[in-house]
Amino acid sequence: MSTPAIPIRAAVLTVSDRCSRGEAVDTSGPALASLLRERLGADVVLSRCLPDEIPQVAACFREWSRPEARIDLVVSTGGTGLAPRDVTPEAARSVFDREHNGLMELARMRCYASTPRTYLSRGVAGTVARTLILTLPGSLRGSTEMLEALLDILPHAIETLRGEVQDDGRAEATPATGRVISHRD
Amino acid sequence: MSTPAIPIRAAVLTVSDRCSRGEAVDTSGPALASLLRERLGADVVLSRCLPDEIPQVAACFREWSRPEARIDLVVSTGGTGLAPRDVTPEAARSVFDREHNGLMELARMRCYASTPRTYLSRGVAGTVARTLILTLPGSLRGSTEMLEALLDILPHAIETLRGEVQDDGRAEATPATGRVISHRD
Amino acid sequence: MSTPAIPIRAAVLTVSDRCSRGEAVDTSGPALASLLRERLGADVVLSRCLPDEIPQVAACFREWSRPEARIDLVVSTGGTGLAPRDVTPEAARSVFDREHNGLMELARMRCYASTPRTYLSRGVAGTVARTLILTLPGSLRGSTEMLEALLDILPHAIETLRGEVQDDGRAEATPATGRVISHRD
Repeated sequence: MSTPAIPIRAAVLTVSDRCSRGEAVDTSGPALASLLRERLGADVVLSRCLPDEIPQVAACFREWSRPEARIDLVVSTGGTGLAPRDVTPEAARSVFDREHNGLMELARMRCYASTPRTYLSRGVAGTVARTLILTLPGSLRGSTEMLEALLDILPHAIETLRGEVQDDGRAEATPATGRVISHRD
Repeated sequence: MSTPAIPIRAAVLTVSDRCSRGEAVDTSGPALASLLRERLGADVVLSRCLPDEIPQVAACFREWSRPEARIDLVVSTGGTGLAPRDVTPEAARSVFDREHNGLMELARMRCYASTPRTYLSRGVAGTVARTLILTLPGSLRGSTEMLEALLDILPHAIETLRGEVQDDGRAEATPATGRVISHRD
Repeated sequence: MSTPAIPIRAAVLTVSDRCSRGEAVDTSGPALASLLRERLGADVVLSRCLPDEIPQVAACFREWSRPEARIDLVVSTGGTGLAPRDVTPEAARSVFDREHNGLMELARMRCYASTPRTYLSRGVAGTVARTLILTLPGSLRGSTEMLEALLDILPHAIETLRGEVQDDGRAEATPATGRVISHRD
């Protein structure tokens, strides 16, 4: 795994009624921030804790995805299960320009061997403008395992989203020389 | 696998033009009801057979998800394929508050070894209020295999949906003693 | 794998800004057409190249799905990744009557061993009237691998979509004789 030449700018959102009221300790948010820094060399420029409310969570995703914020990756933790108040995926979907089913399929598949309950997570992934959003579970173990499952694929995903890599692999038309140049295997 | 202290209340919907006209025998609906009773200790309190019509199927999902019905789990069989009249997933999605991609991903993955065609099923899962809805295929084998593939995970899913378990695993803040209590591994 | 009695009628859409401007050589489109002809015995009756613009791509999917076109299968290549201009899944979803999550889950799962990056593809599948649409990646390798991963399942999918096979496996009710006739295992 290689990291992008320009460091990934990331933000971490903890979605939890109890943490937002100070009734619980948020260990997942800081753990995700550490993973992003240590394993991807990311700058974690923002973090926040919000209750399980669609309007507040959606507003945060929207704010962090504004071009001025220049955030490549938003990782949320919490609110992805089936508990009555869990609505993080709904908040995320309400702001996505483009949903990305494959990323969460991969994360769940890779976590399955060690944690079969990973399939209880309703986590989704998608983009708003040039920002990728991943909604991870609330538990320390669940959230860090899922992020770790995607670490190898995230740098390429983010470089593509930034427009830094040409990813369709199509050869350039070069009528003058007739040569065909492939950008990728 | 443990079953919830309060038995699961379930309902089974058969979606089939032919069964609803009395032209075919519904073996899948009764087989699913038996599985729910025998393997999950569920009370199957309602069952119905409807033709492949979005308005009727959606109305049934809505009716069975009203709080007064106190139904934890609705399982449908039929209408999840690619036949021109198959519209059960569309009816379900039209009523879902929250979709749950992971459950059907898991069911298809687990059924794949014995039944590769399981991936032809367009079945979806999601919740309406406190009711979980699963849309299974119409065939006896396909529907029972998919339900069996989820039996181990359903009790925890339903307890979470009822609000009986705290599922984010976050430790309580206990400023007085400084102790940290974890709810879950 | 058996092929349908009536040959599959297919169409191939290449979605690429560079190819549509003549700046790149489209090798994926012709390769997909060859696969469809050689491996499924399909008649590839139409092909086209369009830029990464939702309105144009959606209009093409709609045009090719009109009943008069009698096209069973539309395969697109390109625009399924995370690059800023990649919008093929969004164009497809805007026209789908019925989305089909299982097909792309299967394709990604099967391609994973040889190409882990397959999960970066946001490709989707779904139907418009009697036409099945698959959105594959732009690269030659990615698009042909994903189509190959579905070749065994496509004939049955298309026969079902045409209404040629009864797929719910339910036995006919035959009150006169009491016999039960099963249509399928």
